[in-house]
Amino acid sequence: MSDFAKTKSIFHLPEGVIYLDGNSLGPLPKATPDNIGNMLTNEWGEMLITGWNKADWMGQPSRVGDRIGKLIGAAAGSVVMGDTLSIKVYQAVSSALELNSSRKVVLSDNGNFPTDLYMVDGLLKSLDAGHELRLSDPDKVEESLSEEIAVLMLTEVDYRTGRKHNMKALTEKAHALGIIVIWDLAHSAGAVEVDLEGCNADFAVGCTYKYLNGGPGAPAFIYVAPRLQDKIRPSLSGWMGHEAPFAFDLDYRAGAGIERMRVGTPPVIALTALESALDIWDMVSMADVRAKSIELCDLFISEVEARCPELELNSPRDGENRGSQVTFKFNEGYAAMQALIAHGVIGDFRAPDNMRFGFTPLYIDESDVRAAVDILADVINNKLWDKPEYKQKARVT
Amino acid sequence: MSDFAKTKSIFHLPEGVIYLDGNSLGPLPKATPDNIGNMLTNEWGEMLITGWNKADWMGQPSRVGDRIGKLIGAAAGSVVMGDTLSIKVYQAVSSALELNSSRKVVLSDNGNFPTDLYMVDGLLKSLDAGHELRLSDPDKVEESLSEEIAVLMLTEVDYRTGRKHNMKALTEKAHALGIIVIWDLAHSAGAVEVDLEGCNADFAVGCTYKYLNGGPGAPAFIYVAPRLQDKIRPSLSGWMGHEAPFAFDLDYRAGAGIERMRVGTPPVIALTALESALDIWDMVSMADVRAKSIELCDLFISEVEARCPELELNSPRDGENRGSQVTFKFNEGYAAMQALIAHGVIGDFRAPDNMRFGFTPLYIDESDVRAAVDILADVINNKLWDKPEYKQKARVT
Repeated sequence: MSDFAKTKSIFHLPEGVIYLDGNSLGPLPKATPDNIGNMLTNEWGEMLITGWNKADWMGQPSRVGDRIGKLIGAAAGSVVMGDTLSIKVYQAVSSALELNSSRKVVLSDNGNFPTDLYMVDGLLKSLDAGHELRLSDPDKVEESLSEEIAVLMLTEVDYRTGRKHNMKALTEKAHALGIIVIWDLAHSAGAVEVDLEGCNADFAVGCTYKYLNGGPGAPAFIYVAPRLQDKIRPSLSGWMGHEAPFAFDLDYRAGAGIERMRVGTPPVIALTALESALDIWDMVSMADVRAKSIELCDLFISEVEARCPELELNSPRDGENRGSQVTFKFNEGYAAMQALIAHGVIGDFRAPDNMRFGFTPLYIDESDVRAAVDILADVINNKLWDKPEYKQKARVT
Repeated sequence: MSDFAKTKSIFHLPEGVIYLDGNSLGPLPKATPDNIGNMLTNEWGEMLITGWNKADWMGQPSRVGDRIGKLIGAAAGSVVMGDTLSIKVYQAVSSALELNSSRKVVLSDNGNFPTDLYMVDGLLKSLDAGHELRLSDPDKVEESLSEEIAVLMLTEVDYRTGRKHNMKALTEKAHALGIIVIWDLAHSAGAVEVDLEGCNADFAVGCTYKYLNGGPGAPAFIYVAPRLQDKIRPSLSGWMGHEAPFAFDLDYRAGAGIERMRVGTPPVIALTALESALDIWDMVSMADVRAKSIELCDLFISEVEARCPELELNSPRDGENRGSQVTFKFNEGYAAMQALIAHGVIGDFRAPDNMRFGFTPLYIDESDVRAAVDILADVINNKLWDKPEYKQKARVT
């Protein structure tokens, strides 16, 4: 069995479904229910409060963080888990702004995921100190860099198009201008090779329910470069980031290193689900996953373009400049995606007209890609989408 | 079977253990593993991304919030779940400070749980606008109120002593002086009767892993009085609090009502555990729980005082002024608690010398109280604590 046939066999994949939306929510690893069941019954149930030490729940945010660190080029002790990506964005931006306090501009691009922009907007309104959130087009980021910019915050892979920024080049250019850089790896971690240390990144954040298969609403991660960790003041200064959480001192003293980015009590059940899903990365290399992902995406593009001329590619054609997803534009994309889902191929839709498909070699292979294109071609070329039930807009996830 | 015999039977309680630490981490409800297993396999596993709508994961934070609302005197639509208590404190304080922006003082007491104070400290440092966090003694809060105070933030029940503030009287007095009041219900929700509406409370926050039995690190809740909801600007303005999260607009527009206090993607697995644990509240009334809790605490106090003269009560003697816990001071309290745990009675220790015991009628009865005192008397009167392995300080939870 090939490595990817092995990894595919460890996921729970519903009968009759080709799942091309792992870029939104990864599927359930088969081992997860038992691992959680074990944690519930044998740890929480039997150890009760003593589980914090006996089962080392307390060490879980760092332990899991280190495992994710290996997938994104981060040294042990530089990644910690908790909260949600939105909260981690807030922590990173507020810390970065204080490190670069003589400057007042946060630069991002208008392809960034909205919650990142919303969190900055909320932070800047709270600070009420004359900051500006400035957005460039994604392809104009480099020319928008200047010594006015305090913080550059980018999502490496665009959630709609899969367009991938050049992390190393942009970080280098930004650093030369005294800018602190925050990378959102939501669509990168587990999808593409990331080398935070090699890029000399300052901060990175990401979620774990997409390519890391941690389950709906799984905890987020934050990376802080070791050279910065002890210089930052946590804005969200919770007791778990305190130097001595169980001394119950009245005054806050930031913990050592990455520990200070912890906030409240760790979400043990959710972290157990995630920890269980990370075992899969012992079976494959990130380089192999990336190479296979590009192959699958290339195959999908060539097949769709050959068979569905009405669809227009809205992703970079060169795999090196693309994440692990492919987007096609189609005027009736919303209805077409509903029809496609009804016919057993799950992708998703992003306004105004993007049909988005994620490809994850861990559980998607060439035969899935070909079968999905067969159904897509049927939906598009035979106008199967042209029914009222597909056109009616429900709440979209 | 009495109501409480019924509720006791639905918890997983380890053999040979009397658990008096449900005020720190409630025990596992027997139904929780199956309920989570079902969510994992039949919802996440089978529905994949469509679970957000089909299984209404998206509505979970409000749905669960409404159930908790019933336990704390809050109307439907005024409580929402997410994140941790530390984050919810931050949201409440930052919103309250903006509502009362002409004033610069946050008043709390030095008996408050440290993370609440740490979060305010971090917020005020970020704002850098001349705010002050002022602490009074718990019994001097009322006389410390003045028109200088913007926000009064108190934990209703003191985590060390169980001393209970008078929520209604303090809120009324604070309101008369134009102060906004935030109540932390960490040791109240599920433990004592709370009537947020009857007290005309402004904000309340709380965790769910203590008396609500949601599991280690379970999500927190926030209450905002309906009259204030549409006036507040969320500082943590995440996409799930947006008016239209799936429009993916670049600009943030706060959602209606309590929804705007949502931040990132909801933690579905953790919320499923919590939701499962809330079923128990259909079997009992909060008034009966409170009455029984006072009986159990009174019994414990009288038995310990009769049999362990070296221990000194450090909780209010009058049950009406006390939460659902009892604390005794003892010089060798740390070692005594370790010995007690080794002998099958789990309580906990809070520096410098507090032995803390929680009483939860849902699964603790008179016979447990008497058996626990038997063991405690043995530990104290026969100096069973006087062994090196009990005196060695490990990390304390």
